[in-house]
Amino acid sequence: MKPIRAILASTSTVHGSGYLEYILETLEDFFKDINEILFIPFARPDGMSHDAYTAIAAHAFQNINKNLKGIHQYSNPKIAIQEAEAIFVGGGNTFLLVYDLYQYKVMDVLRDTIAAGIPYFGTSAGINIFGQTMQNTNDMPIVFPPSYKTLGLVPFNFNAHYVDPDPDSTHKGETRETRIKEYLTQNNIAVVGLREGSWLEINGTDITLKGALSARIFEKNKPAYELSTSLEFPVLRQN
Amino acid sequence: MKPIRAILASTSTVHGSGYLEYILETLEDFFKDINEILFIPFARPDGMSHDAYTAIAAHAFQNINKNLKGIHQYSNPKIAIQEAEAIFVGGGNTFLLVYDLYQYKVMDVLRDTIAAGIPYFGTSAGINIFGQTMQNTNDMPIVFPPSYKTLGLVPFNFNAHYVDPDPDSTHKGETRETRIKEYLTQNNIAVVGLREGSWLEINGTDITLKGALSARIFEKNKPAYELSTSLEFPVLRQN
Repeated sequence: MKPIRAILASTSTVHGSGYLEYILETLEDFFKDINEILFIPFARPDGMSHDAYTAIAAHAFQNINKNLKGIHQYSNPKIAIQEAEAIFVGGGNTFLLVYDLYQYKVMDVLRDTIAAGIPYFGTSAGINIFGQTMQNTNDMPIVFPPSYKTLGLVPFNFNAHYVDPDPDSTHKGETRETRIKEYLTQNNIAVVGLREGSWLEINGTDITLKGALSARIFEKNKPAYELSTSLEFPVLRQN
Repeated sequence: MKPIRAILASTSTVHGSGYLEYILETLEDFFKDINEILFIPFARPDGMSHDAYTAIAAHAFQNINKNLKGIHQYSNPKIAIQEAEAIFVGGGNTFLLVYDLYQYKVMDVLRDTIAAGIPYFGTSAGINIFGQTMQNTNDMPIVFPPSYKTLGLVPFNFNAHYVDPDPDSTHKGETRETRIKEYLTQNNIAVVGLREGSWLEINGTDITLKGALSARIFEKNKPAYELSTSLEFPVLRQN
């Protein structure tokens, strides 16, 4: 069996740069043996249509000479996943994404396909589903999925677009750190807070943090800590 | 039957001021005929215990000479609600609050008690439950409630701690406005974005916005708009 291969990016877009632009060189290398990528547009950012979202993603991948086809263009989404050369799940609303994956009954086949070594690229909501559950999403519960359980391909959860508390803020809503700590009062799954511009590269059992910024790791009954870029992920070994 | 009476505040605390301090004078008047208030601490901000949270709320209400007792101090939470003189539901995690209200089977009795005219005060998560559903919460789904349906005592939903998009932000996570618009692509319930320091006063069918700031109203297929303070709520009439 081939090892799992994945690139899991906090965000599709960093400030001052186009869609996927900051990570395109990495993707070119990651997908170098791939001709066509299956795109799953279920998260629908801004409520956009599957066609509109797929067009944006396809446009970005044209820059590295890859074809991209939306899963909604296939009559059977399950077979589309099983026969994919590579898969990209884009960001948007995680509740909507998870709802649709269950609705189309493809959560299991997606997990099995990635576990069998089909290269996976995810951004934002597309990384939230890679962990044990989607419970560290920042998104609004705009639909009611049948479960928060997700692919479970790593033994932790993700918080995409992680942001540090702003010491100058006058806003009294909870900080991201407070929200994740509240999660850990009710659950015992580590959470990886991935800052924008950073991503994880997964190659079999090796998980490496890449990109500009360190990640913040939250574990139950432990102070949160920073993990520097280019280091392997201790969180994986412990679980 | 007595009219519904409620004060629904975006936040318990505004910047530079103590817990409930900014609204205490309003509460003194609102609760002027009340001796004891039933407090529901289920939302557990920062994961704090029911005792610790109740102590904080009780301390604030001592300033206006009101006793406050936590629902967890009663052997039967349903009877505690039915016999309450007045009710206060504090903020924290909305998923946890809704989960516990269903767990203890008190969602219905809470709605009926408030509908019968028992004065209700809510902050943050405590206002999210006053609307049709909790689907415009900002909180993380740290537990899985059996339903997002809430008290339904007004024909709209709340977004507490509403914040405007920051034009100088370099962060690429969705703005609050984008999240609410995504909600309206999937649902047809108006959303009231209540800024910190503002609250709604409900007296029977009259709903009035009070406090320092206007509210932002989101309705399906309509541009979002501002509602000035001290104005009655057109949203109620339309639904």
